[in-house]
Amino acid sequence: MGYFIGCDLGGTNLRAAVVNSVTGEVNSLTIIPTMAHEGYEAVLLRMANLFKDIIEKSKLKSDDIQGIGIGVPGMMDFESGLTTFITNLPGHWINVPVAPIIKEKTGIPAFLINDVRAITWGELKFGAGKGCQSLVCYALGTGIGGGIVVNNQLVLGNSGQAGELGHMTVDPNGPLCNCGNHGCLEQYSSGPAIKAAALKAISHGGTTILGEMVGYDLNKMTPEVVYNAAMKGDTIARTIYENAGYYLGIAIANSIVTLEPQKIVIGGGIAQAGELLFAPMRKAIQERVFLVPMDRIEIVQAELGNNAGVIGASMWAENRIQK
Amino acid sequence: MGYFIGCDLGGTNLRAAVVNSVTGEVNSLTIIPTMAHEGYEAVLLRMANLFKDIIEKSKLKSDDIQGIGIGVPGMMDFESGLTTFITNLPGHWINVPVAPIIKEKTGIPAFLINDVRAITWGELKFGAGKGCQSLVCYALGTGIGGGIVVNNQLVLGNSGQAGELGHMTVDPNGPLCNCGNHGCLEQYSSGPAIKAAALKAISHGGTTILGEMVGYDLNKMTPEVVYNAAMKGDTIARTIYENAGYYLGIAIANSIVTLEPQKIVIGGGIAQAGELLFAPMRKAIQERVFLVPMDRIEIVQAELGNNAGVIGASMWAENRIQK
Repeated sequence: MGYFIGCDLGGTNLRAAVVNSVTGEVNSLTIIPTMAHEGYEAVLLRMANLFKDIIEKSKLKSDDIQGIGIGVPGMMDFESGLTTFITNLPGHWINVPVAPIIKEKTGIPAFLINDVRAITWGELKFGAGKGCQSLVCYALGTGIGGGIVVNNQLVLGNSGQAGELGHMTVDPNGPLCNCGNHGCLEQYSSGPAIKAAALKAISHGGTTILGEMVGYDLNKMTPEVVYNAAMKGDTIARTIYENAGYYLGIAIANSIVTLEPQKIVIGGGIAQAGELLFAPMRKAIQERVFLVPMDRIEIVQAELGNNAGVIGASMWAENRIQK
Repeated sequence: MGYFIGCDLGGTNLRAAVVNSVTGEVNSLTIIPTMAHEGYEAVLLRMANLFKDIIEKSKLKSDDIQGIGIGVPGMMDFESGLTTFITNLPGHWINVPVAPIIKEKTGIPAFLINDVRAITWGELKFGAGKGCQSLVCYALGTGIGGGIVVNNQLVLGNSGQAGELGHMTVDPNGPLCNCGNHGCLEQYSSGPAIKAAALKAISHGGTTILGEMVGYDLNKMTPEVVYNAAMKGDTIARTIYENAGYYLGIAIANSIVTLEPQKIVIGGGIAQAGELLFAPMRKAIQERVFLVPMDRIEIVQAELGNNAGVIGASMWAENRIQK
């Protein structure tokens, strides 16, 4: 109970806020560029100053903040608070003592968590998963991340990598993924996968308004453009989302037979496509899950939007402080 | 701490024993036919009498037995101790109050658990998973069952169906499974799948000693025959196990990116093929898991053999009594 800082360390931005752990209320949300190319020391100094700024903005004192949670896009060592491997962040983030440095610079205990596990924890505490004992979260964006809660506890795994649901194999003969595997979910249902499918359709000269919608400038293709084309009745655009939903459904079906959770929570920018994605996803689940009663599982959209990571990271600090 | 009864309610046999919860020692193990065709009332009466017999055999009194755990091949309601749906067991096992009836007939508190979750719990307590906080168990037999432990707790799901790993989709375009899905792991790596692959090879007139090994009587084909043929250098037989291991590896890779457990425990009759199955399985995992550090995950064979279910069910009763 009290105030915690939550921070999302992203490739582009540092996003931080003070969060009230009773109400989930977010205060003094501030977003500044990460400028990771300057190296981790500069980033951590900027981060510590950001925390001091938002404490001041929120008219609290340092002593009022019980802990800081930092969501990072990669792996960590929980005991030491070191990042062990960070993807998509320039600079050498291997064995960087992020939590100890932030604690030293701010005087406040700091804790690391993977960014999508933070979103999951946030949705459990104050979002779509409120009141659940178990849930599986899929965050569909540039990549696909995930997070798992069982028995009201976040599933972390040995190095915080439990929940890498974007790298579940949904077709063993599928396309090569950046990770090295073939047929990862991320190759079908992420933003880049949807964009790539649109580019392919245009390149193949398919009967579609997708090219026209970007003035035949392929650089302007986005998942939103594909969504808008589908909404206008474009069959190819609709099929692209159907395909993304189908493979998402396979992954979710696998999560269901593995974990039989109370809720599946789907967030991230791509989830905003709504029924265009959700209808084929539900159909795939229906065609694949038979030995687990589906009437006890709800599939819902995430509720906290862009604040999920910050809220979740702050509540993770609360969780760690209580231990 | 103390003595518990563990029972495995199987389609063919009832297997029960008294288990010492400190040492895991199994006493007075007794196996009798289930005779499920007589209906659940007869089975439960036979079961209660079996429990009285083994208590007497073990020279204990009813009062010395703190609880009874019963592993059942299906779904249940944990609160009420009712079976809700039992596969592969003749008789109408829907909403049968198994635990209350056994408690009434023996005077000892009784608890239900899915049979493969019982194996998982047994391996955690006294077998290959001893000392682990998290593990994923695959039991490869006539079907493929599974079980999951996270944070030292069994993952049950809403109705005890978490861990149905045999019904994970490992190829979305794969063969129809008995469950209704296509491409379930069970269609590739179970005993019947291995047997069916051998029958197919013989039917197609492949260059193999498999036919000769059963005297050209297809009814005599078993996974053991295929194993023995592979050991004699038969390429087709070897390929059948390679295929089974490959798909098992895909499923395990999916379990790893989902849960990042400390151990993967593989049991059941088919696991006795050892390296014939494990080498291609490890290769598939190596080719598919990149974002989770494999040096912190052990893949091991189950240790408790046929007693795993009985030990696990008894320890599940212990766990429930303590709550």
